[in-house]
Amino acid sequence: MNDGPPDRMQTGQPAAPVALVDAPAAAPSLAELGLENFPPYLMNRIMGRYNVSLREEMAALGLTTPQMRALAVLSVHDGLLIRELVVYAVVEQSTLSRALDALVKAGLVTRTPDPHDNRATRMSITAPGRAAYERLWPHMAASCAQMFRGIPQAEQQTFTATLQKMLRNIRKHDF
Amino acid sequence: MNDGPPDRMQTGQPAAPVALVDAPAAAPSLAELGLENFPPYLMNRIMGRYNVSLREEMAALGLTTPQMRALAVLSVHDGLLIRELVVYAVVEQSTLSRALDALVKAGLVTRTPDPHDNRATRMSITAPGRAAYERLWPHMAASCAQMFRGIPQAEQQTFTATLQKMLRNIRKHDF
Repeated sequence: MNDGPPDRMQTGQPAAPVALVDAPAAAPSLAELGLENFPPYLMNRIMGRYNVSLREEMAALGLTTPQMRALAVLSVHDGLLIRELVVYAVVEQSTLSRALDALVKAGLVTRTPDPHDNRATRMSITAPGRAAYERLWPHMAASCAQMFRGIPQAEQQTFTATLQKMLRNIRKHDF
Repeated sequence: MNDGPPDRMQTGQPAAPVALVDAPAAAPSLAELGLENFPPYLMNRIMGRYNVSLREEMAALGLTTPQMRALAVLSVHDGLLIRELVVYAVVEQSTLSRALDALVKAGLVTRTPDPHDNRATRMSITAPGRAAYERLWPHMAASCAQMFRGIPQAEQQTFTATLQKMLRNIRKHDF
């Protein structure tokens, strides 16, 4: 008679995770699942180690993580609008503004008014900015390679393809 | 006669990424690779969105990200030493200390001296702490489910298995 999820309010159980998207009504708790089976936990652990592994090299270049991310993104997509860079670099607007101020002051990037919209600013990487980034990139690539040590190439490709689907699922922009 | 990587110093090219671990000597640049093919970039983007998606719910509970992570870990592994919690929660020691101070003050966790080492402190989650965490967990599970929307179960399992291998590659502790 009732094809919907059971009404847990009548069972005296704790509030059911009724807000779950695409998840079964009887989703296990984190303790039942285990931290090591919850992908966001694993991704946080892995990215935490990745970021720490780069910190020493960034410090040697006098760069912070937000500054490094901005340089890395601009090395690929030069001339982005600041609002685009916020998304690509995964840095909050106010933090990114401070990072860009420091990068401009160090001569690693420049601000240019957008020719079509005088309220918008585009960021460009300078030759010294590119040189700083090129000193960092081998370490980024090495940290990435270390993550994947011993994992077959085909498995790495499958993994990256899944990440690309996940990004399409959660992103709020077209890039 | 020379089976090793080519000596780029003789070619006049920029410094080669000779420090790369398990990576080919001629590793492409990030621009050649493309951001969308560099797994750490994808993982940062995805985890950035995951963390933002939980922020509103955390704010409603008066919790910060480090506080939420500490509660989530203690909900699974109650009674951890602080130095273990630092690793599990991926939060720096000083940030974690402040988070734990706030959680103790709010009555969500308690500090107990370790019976075998009076310089060590173990953290326990209280009943109100567990209740706060149980309000958050459905949102964590929903955000995770949203990441994987439309991705077949088998692919999700393969992805998680690869993450587990990656964590074993990069972690510095046995857990």
